[in-house]
Parts: sequence; C-alpha cells; structure tokens
Amino acid sequence: MTQAFSSIRINPDRMLDAFNQLASIGATADSGVDRPTFSEAHLAARKWFREHIESSGLEFRTDGAGNHSAFLPCDDPNAPTLILGSHLDSVPNGGRFDGALGVMAALEALKTVRENRIKLKVQLEAMDFTDEEGTLVGLLGSAAVAGHLLPENLEKPRGGREKLLDGMARAGLTDASMLSAARKKESLAGYLELHIEQGKRLERAGTNIGIVTAIVGIWSYRLSFIGKADHAGSTTMEDRRDASLGASAFTLMAREMVMRDFPNCVVNVGKMDFAPGAFNIVPAQVDVSLEFRSPDEAEFIRLDQALLKLAGEQAARFGLELRTEFLGKHSPSLMDESVRAAFADSCDALGLTHMPLPSGAGHDGQSLADLCPVGMIFVPSVDGASHSPREFTKWEDCVNGANVLLQAALRLGNG
Amino acid sequence: MTQAFSSIRINPDRMLDAFNQLASIGATADSGVDRPTFSEAHLAARKWFREHIESSGLEFRTDGAGNHSAFLPCDDPNAPTLILGSHLDSVPNGGRFDGALGVMAALEALKTVRENRIKLKVQLEAMDFTDEEGTLVGLLGSAAVAGHLLPENLEKPRGGREKLLDGMARAGLTDASMLSAARKKESLAGYLELHIEQGKRLERAGTNIGIVTAIVGIWSYRLSFIGKADHAGSTTMEDRRDASLGASAFTLMAREMVMRDFPNCVVNVGKMDFAPGAFNIVPAQVDVSLEFRSPDEAEFIRLDQALLKLAGEQAARFGLELRTEFLGKHSPSLMDESVRAAFADSCDALGLTHMPLPSGAGHDGQSLADLCPVGMIFVPSVDGASHSPREFTKWEDCVNGANVLLQAALRLGNG
Repeated sequence: MTQAFSSIRINPDRMLDAFNQLASIGATADSGVDRPTFSEAHLAARKWFREHIESSGLEFRTDGAGNHSAFLPCDDPNAPTLILGSHLDSVPNGGRFDGALGVMAALEALKTVRENRIKLKVQLEAMDFTDEEGTLVGLLGSAAVAGHLLPENLEKPRGGREKLLDGMARAGLTDASMLSAARKKESLAGYLELHIEQGKRLERAGTNIGIVTAIVGIWSYRLSFIGKADHAGSTTMEDRRDASLGASAFTLMAREMVMRDFPNCVVNVGKMDFAPGAFNIVPAQVDVSLEFRSPDEAEFIRLDQALLKLAGEQAARFGLELRTEFLGKHSPSLMDESVRAAFADSCDALGLTHMPLPSGAGHDGQSLADLCPVGMIFVPSVDGASHSPREFTKWEDCVNGANVLLQAALRLGNG
Repeated sequence: MTQAFSSIRINPDRMLDAFNQLASIGATADSGVDRPTFSEAHLAARKWFREHIESSGLEFRTDGAGNHSAFLPCDDPNAPTLILGSHLDSVPNGGRFDGALGVMAALEALKTVRENRIKLKVQLEAMDFTDEEGTLVGLLGSAAVAGHLLPENLEKPRGGREKLLDGMARAGLTDASMLSAARKKESLAGYLELHIEQGKRLERAGTNIGIVTAIVGIWSYRLSFIGKADHAGSTTMEDRRDASLGASAFTLMAREMVMRDFPNCVVNVGKMDFAPGAFNIVPAQVDVSLEFRSPDEAEFIRLDQALLKLAGEQAARFGLELRTEFLGKHSPSLMDESVRAAFADSCDALGLTHMPLPSGAGHDGQSLADLCPVGMIFVPSVDGASHSPREFTKWEDCVNGANVLLQAALRLGNG
C-alpha cells in the first residue's frame, strides 16, 4: 500500500451531517427510528439516500430487488466491484445506528476516495440492501444479489405473503424483478460492512474494533399450540385444554435448555398470538414466533431437533396439539481470511485496538459469503443496546469504524 | 297456584323458529355465532329482536343502556315488574345458546302468558341486557339497570375506552344515557334467567335442571411484565430481560397455585400482548389479560393477594418490572331462596329432576341480586362446551328450561 493511501481519512463532520439527516427520517420521540421495510418512513429514507447520492456527484444505481447504491467507477470498466454497505430499514421502534451507520460510512468512504482522486483497481459501490431486518423476508436484497433468492422464499415469507406484496407494490417491485437482481460471481471483488456490535463484548474489553470471524445462522418457526376454547368460569381447571400452558412452558424450558446444552446458541420467543384472545375464554390456540441462532451447522441440527421435541412434549403435557411451520433459515457464514487481515492491518496502521468476534446477529454479508470475499467490523455499542431506541455508539467510535472500512477498501482495492 | 296455570306450557316450535332466526345472525361457518357487543352482527340481532317483538304484538321498550325488552303489562299500572331475560351478545366466535336461549325463552314465556290471557299481579318484561359478555365492560346493561354503574366503570373499561366509545356511538348511546338507566328498587318484583350450564355437571349427573345457588364473582387485571427490548441474536441469554419469561412463569404457576390452594376458584390468562412483537427482538413488554373467579368474597381477597404476590415474584425472578392495572370486579351473589323454591316446585310439577349448582360463570342476575329476588336455572351443555362453536344443548332440554322459567314466573307473579 502506498504511503499516500495510508494517510487518507474520512470527513467526520460530513458523515455526521448525513447520519443526522438520515436519523431524522422515521425518528421516534425517544431518539430511535421506526423504519420497517417499505413503511412510509423507510420509503422516505430511501428517497433521501437517492437524492443525497445524486447531489454529491456520485452515480445512483438500483436493481430489481430495490437495493440502492452509490457507484464510483475505476478506469477499467471490466474490473470487479467491491461493495461496501449495510441497510436503511430498521426493526419496529429500533435505533439510529443499526444499518444506517454502515450505509453512511460506505457512502462517506466513496466520497473520500472520489475527492482524493484515488485510482483503484475495482469499482466501488456503497449499498443499501433491501429488508435486512426481516420485516418481510430478511436479508432480502442481499439474497437477491447473491442469486440465493428462490420463488418459495417469496411465497412463504416470515412476515406473510400479503405484507410482502403490499411492500413490493409500494416500492415498485415484483417477484420477477426480485429474482432478476442476481449478480455474476466474477463481477464481485468483495463485500465489506461496518456495523455496531449489538452486544457488550467490545465495551467490556475496552477495544476499538471487533473483526468478525463468522456470522451466526438463523432458523425460524411458527409453533402453534392448539387446545380448546371453553368458558373461563364454568370449565373446571382440570377440564381445560389451555393452549397458553404449552406455549408458556415451552418458552421457559427452551431458554433453560439452550443455556444449559447449547451455550453457543440463543433462542427467542418474540411474540405469542392468542386466539380467540378474550379475558373470559380459555385460549384455544397460541402461535409462538420462534427464532434460534447458531454459529455452527451441525449444532443447528441438534438444536432444531431438541426444540421441536421439547415443543411436542410440552404440548402433550397439557393435552394440546402442536403444529409446526418452518419459516426459513440462514446458514452460518465464515468471514474471509484476507479481508480479516486487511481489517487488522488497517486497525494497526490507525493505532486502533481490535479483537476477533463472532456475530450473533445476521447480516447481509452472509448472503454473499460464498460468492466473494466478505468481511465485517464492529464498533462498540454502549451497554450493548440494540434493536431499541437506547441503541447508541459514541461518534468517535463511528469515525474509527469508517476509517477502518475505508482503509481496508483501499488495501483490497489496490491489490 | 291455580290448576289452570300449572298446565300452561310454552310453544316449542314457535320458540325454535325464533331461536333459529336469531342463530342465523352472525352465524359462523362452524355453527357458532360471532356477535360481540355492538358489532355489525350484534346490531343486526338487536334490530331483529325489536322487529320480532313488535310483529308479535308485544310492546317494545328500550333504555339508556341499550337494553331491549318485550313488555307485557298487568292490570295494575303500579305493580312491580318481574324481569325474565339474558343477552344477545356473544364472545368472539361463541356459541348459539349462551344468552340467546335465555332471551328466546323469556320472550316465549311472555307470548304464552299473553295468548293464554293470564292475569298476573306483576308486569312481565323479557329483556336482552347489553354487553353481558364483557366485550366492552361486562354485565353492562344489568349494572346500569341496578344503578351500580359508575362513571369510572365507563372511563376504564376492560375492552378499552376507545372501543367503548365506538360501540356506544354505533348504538346511539352515551355515558350520560348509560348512567340514566337505573330503575327503582320498588319497581322490580324479581329477575329470572334460564341459561345453559357451560359445564359438565348436569350431563354427568343425568339431571334435567340445575337450580343456581350462587353466581361466582369475577376480578380482572392487566398485568404488564416489563423488561428490555434487545437484539435477539447479539444479546447473550444471560444479559436479557425478556418479558415473556415472567408472563409465562406466572401463567403456569397461577394455574398450579389455584388448583392446589383455591379448589373452588378458577383463573384464566385469556391473552398476552407482546411488544414490540418481532421475531428478532427480545420482548420488552408482555401484557397479560388475567381474570379469576370465586364464589366467596373472603376467598377473593386471599386469591387476589396470592396472584399479585406470585406475579411480583416471577417478575423479580427474571429481572422484570411489574405493573398491575385493576380492571374491575363483580362480587359473588347468592340466589334468592323463594325463587329457588319456585324453580324447584316447578320442576317437580313438570316431572323434571333438579339439583343445586353454583354458577362458575358471571351472569346479569348478579347485578340485580341486591335489588330484588334473583334466581337462575341451568340446562345441560353437551360435553360442557361453552364460549365456543361446539356449544350445544338438546332442544328438549331447552324446552324443559323454558317451561320451568314460565312456571316459576307464574308462581312468583301470582303470589
């Protein structure tokens, strides 16, 4: 790497200005943002991103999956593209940093390369991937780019088909356009992402940068515990087949089992839907929204079997029927060694401490990991808060992360 | 009682015809009815009832609480009124018999008295009480008639204030009209109700008629278990404050405690509402819809304390905050001895077997029990099903109940 490149830094004030403009779109009263995929606020954020790219002199690009990007070509039109990116959608009532920081840092990196007239051997692209968070499908835009998206993923999305159709219509997309967004393997030089950690490990260790070793996989199910609707006053406790009991026992015991037998994994019951859902009716059905994560494929298979067995046992214990609906999975992904080394070298050159970390959260990089070299870095999350308005990262940490992202892109794009 | 009176019977075919017309309004595909208070189907059933009363030559009456009735005067305009009745609203996806049978039997009793030109010493009224089931408030119309309804009951109804306001608007009612429906104690001769048992005791005993000894009381709460929204992948299991755990543990342990320590009581968690309610967010808050019932006031106080203590313990166990919102109560009510005797004598005269039973369900009679003599009878529920489309009572049992209701009204109205 040339000496000239190693002294290049992003413009912290310019990045902060863009970050704050974006954070104001869909802002909630408690300093968070509410921008689920293709909500009004999300569409407004997408429009702002497009206009911001165009007004800053970069080329705006989009594809059939609704991914938006800024493009900075190199001299060789046949050179592959190094994508930097993240996502502008949020979970409901989420935070300002998750996704948004990565997109703003990627955009700032392109602005910095452009204003410094740096000649790289790759095209650079700063990308906002569609529906990372899973309001509709999850990792949707990146799966489409990777060519992993299948018609059946769109037929049975975890947010429901109706919601997906509504959302795609609002964004001018269709099933067919989604499936057309795949890129050729040879067109990609790699994918780099800066993200907040969403955990407490960097903060506890007092370390500047986490270099991701692997992204955990995610499997999700809808488990329906089915009993019998009965009068909640006149039916004796013994005579009830109360669906809430199976759902409650499963929720408690799944947590205990994962903590005891699967220490590298996590499980979440994010929602229960009660039917008919009245004070004075014994619940006939409770639908449990279940998700679990593992960094290892073999462990996933064991955990899946153990959770379904537990659900069946708890249904039987309370005289209930169990129905299981598999809603989809993302496999665990290892990060590329050469990209990890580029991040580590960049940290060292910038005088920043770093440590290897697995990612407990899913990220778009996992879609792309078998297509091109993929790497991620984390910056510290204050108190580990995430998917919450309490989400916060100190601005100097955001700037550190953006400089590491830029430096790693320069190293990889110059090689 | 005169010999002439004791041979009077209701017209089973006429009652069946009316019952079937009513059951078709808000009918569901699985033979149930869906007529929550002031829903379109409930408003249609109310309109049908009014038109049916008017076309059958009885006087239609209504009051500020939206109670509808058929009125049959006696010769003395100053005589008190003996009310027979029940309710036309249903729980969501309920059955055809709960409430509807009692109103149709009351109406048929008035038709029978009228066509037989029987002179009684009381006015007769066949009443449909508003919102017995508690879509909005619960026992709403009868509480209004009894003068027990307070402005605060309308301010903080268990279904939420918005829903109450919407419903009252659709029925042309207001807070002020509701509070104006109270009747004077001296205007009431008594209240009699026929209802399905909603349990299996009569069926198991092979007995025709249950004569209710007391109606259990009902207390209800919204319990909010409050934790912290966090990323469901990157937050370790140990670091979570997952609101679902407190709600689930409470649900399981409340059931165990009631079965062990409060055998005369029942408890129900009819619904949980998860916030934010996404697959990939640790639940920050779970609101538990809690209802419990007891035939005894002192036991209520012990059960209330035990349940709130349990909820607090389970919240603390999982690092959660607990907020409790008391949504209202109905005290247990003893049925009148003279009315019970009139029912028993009527059964004996009709050759029907009978047994004393407490009512595990709440009924409008409990609103009126401190105003006038109140009594209820039950007819057998097949398999005990209730608040469900599976609710069923053999028509001959319905006819038996209607004849006991008529005979008891004749005995009490002739006294």
